[in-house]
Amino acid sequence: MDVFEAIRARRSVRRYKPRPVEREKLERILEAGRLAPSAANRQPWHFVVVTDPSVRDELVMAHERDQFFRSTGDLLRAPVVIVACADRKRAWVRRDGEEYWKVDVAIAMQNMVLCATEEGLGTCWIGAFSPEATRKILGIPDDIRIVAITPLGYPDESPATSDRRTMQEIVHYQHW
Amino acid sequence: MDVFEAIRARRSVRRYKPRPVEREKLERILEAGRLAPSAANRQPWHFVVVTDPSVRDELVMAHERDQFFRSTGDLLRAPVVIVACADRKRAWVRRDGEEYWKVDVAIAMQNMVLCATEEGLGTCWIGAFSPEATRKILGIPDDIRIVAITPLGYPDESPATSDRRTMQEIVHYQHW
Repeated sequence: MDVFEAIRARRSVRRYKPRPVEREKLERILEAGRLAPSAANRQPWHFVVVTDPSVRDELVMAHERDQFFRSTGDLLRAPVVIVACADRKRAWVRRDGEEYWKVDVAIAMQNMVLCATEEGLGTCWIGAFSPEATRKILGIPDDIRIVAITPLGYPDESPATSDRRTMQEIVHYQHW
Repeated sequence: MDVFEAIRARRSVRRYKPRPVEREKLERILEAGRLAPSAANRQPWHFVVVTDPSVRDELVMAHERDQFFRSTGDLLRAPVVIVACADRKRAWVRRDGEEYWKVDVAIAMQNMVLCATEEGLGTCWIGAFSPEATRKILGIPDDIRIVAITPLGYPDESPATSDRRTMQEIVHYQHW
């Protein structure tokens, strides 16, 4: 699948088949994340990969118990969950204090998302997760930031594209 | 070019040929950015696309004058420069105040970077830019954040891959 085709085909998949993800595909997806560029090549990312159903269920239940994150719990019901984290101490910071760890981790995650699409697998970028519950269940150290989560598995639905703003709204030539 | 191949082939290109970028390719790349997913589908991105050499030269010179950003000035010498911005007011924020505009813009930018790679074009993620100079030259409003910049053009060098941390250092199964 070519890049543009993968970008166009990607959907936020919220229902997954129980069919496991092949180890080889999962490793290829993680490799896509590993190869991402990052500010000053600091690579501040860590990926916690949950394939054990009992750990996954802890994440599902903790989110379902929280009214704000109920729908997130439901969409974590996938054979694999990838939790993308940042080691803020390791990341590059610009002279004016602007931090790049969120950008770096987002680049790596999008590489994984597009690679998964190519492999016929679904994903869903999630920012609406509970950092406290996720940290506790997965034993993520206090100084590590959790940036985003995605389920990973074979899609059990074919969602339509969501709307996008027009080019005229978002592209400016020469000046704003 | 398939997705994994593009991820592997991408390099941070710092020298560009003067050959212009075809309008059709540029528009396809911007479309790749437009189609990115974003938190709550808020699409907080704006792209300022500089193709006018006099505007580009203003960016180059402003960065070269600043000791901290001198090398950035040099690498902006490309036929196209894309400045990726975020409208923070438009972006989604989690209940705990965590903001996602950097993540959203990074996703869109990486879509563009991979699409450019597929089109045979080079890019280079830049965080080491002067927000003040860039804002002033391009007339970017005060409430808009500048997240990253990339030059875009036909590569005039073939850089080697940079080092990456091993899988063992960055991947954790089930728990951290």
